[in-house]
Amino acid sequence: MKKLTIPEQTIERLPLYLRRSEELKTQGEEAVTSDQFVKDLPGINSENLRKDLSYFGNYGKRGSGYDIPRLIKELRKILKLHVETDVILIGAGNLGTALLTHQDFNRWGFRISAAFDKNPGVIGNEIGGIRIQPIQGIESKVRNQEIEVAMIAVPAPNAQEVADMLVSAGIKGILNFAPVLLETPQTVKVMQLDITSKLKELNYYLKEE
Amino acid sequence: MKKLTIPEQTIERLPLYLRRSEELKTQGEEAVTSDQFVKDLPGINSENLRKDLSYFGNYGKRGSGYDIPRLIKELRKILKLHVETDVILIGAGNLGTALLTHQDFNRWGFRISAAFDKNPGVIGNEIGGIRIQPIQGIESKVRNQEIEVAMIAVPAPNAQEVADMLVSAGIKGILNFAPVLLETPQTVKVMQLDITSKLKELNYYLKEE
Repeated sequence: MKKLTIPEQTIERLPLYLRRSEELKTQGEEAVTSDQFVKDLPGINSENLRKDLSYFGNYGKRGSGYDIPRLIKELRKILKLHVETDVILIGAGNLGTALLTHQDFNRWGFRISAAFDKNPGVIGNEIGGIRIQPIQGIESKVRNQEIEVAMIAVPAPNAQEVADMLVSAGIKGILNFAPVLLETPQTVKVMQLDITSKLKELNYYLKEE
Repeated sequence: MKKLTIPEQTIERLPLYLRRSEELKTQGEEAVTSDQFVKDLPGINSENLRKDLSYFGNYGKRGSGYDIPRLIKELRKILKLHVETDVILIGAGNLGTALLTHQDFNRWGFRISAAFDKNPGVIGNEIGGIRIQPIQGIESKVRNQEIEVAMIAVPAPNAQEVADMLVSAGIKGILNFAPVLLETPQTVKVMQLDITSKLKELNYYLKEE
């Protein structure tokens, strides 16, 4: 596996392929063609699918298309979903509350193991079974429990300060919901999940004439 | 402008370029090199930037890099952000509440003009200045006010049913937060904003050895 040569767009699509495979399995499908597979995958065609999967191996079944149970197993392995991942959350406002009560994380091995906020009105509250701690506790949590992943759901003006705390505590990856671009060292992987940006992207396609 | 030949990845990056340009403007920058520009843009290099912008025109200033005020103006135009866009929301649970109170939409011309839920305990509540209506009202709202964009923030098992209602009412674009792939006609543009998928993607990079 030559991981370093795999395009980021390919990696971005793998979780969708996994979700689609799980759906097909639920529908009782054992094998499907690439055209059937990409149906309902937004913005992905069968050529993308074939090329993306070719980086990892050959998942086709002769004459019958993709082997769904095998694809599920392999995609879970590629995405390292067979191990549990502890995640911390910073920001327990409306979005943070939504994340703390999100039903889809556990199913894939992600567990929010601590949540932090700086608002005294929120600290001490329990949301989704997690007690909100003051942000001063971030550093020891990350260090002592070797947490690698954090989600930032604080208001935009506070996001960089929180990112700095996380970086100095030794975090490896950040999923940033704040609509601001974070400055971090190259060694920290940042993913931007920017709701307004997605709306802008959608807007581009809709207002096209 | 040959829009049809522009890759989806390019369009996906334009909102980030716009955000970055606004940040540079706030910092008082009038022109920056492509290397300065892509600093802090996750997963984007200066080659991406140059190629992406070349689809739309030439925004370089001889010898001084990109002309920031002009880039902002042009990107806003390309993304059609000079016109207000009415958006409706379906699902007023925790995530829906976060969307209704999200501070970043208005700034870019997006306005949630109605919100719907099927939970009687939520219908009638006012969140972020919007009164939650029963989902039966979706159809007349979309038809009568020519709404083009909807955000789906309902639990996964209900998302397809809601998408069907939206499609039959004539919606043009859907931003789907539910972790499920929607079946829609080709004429409806669906964007998936799938939080767990982003975590999986991040996971891939972190656990690489």
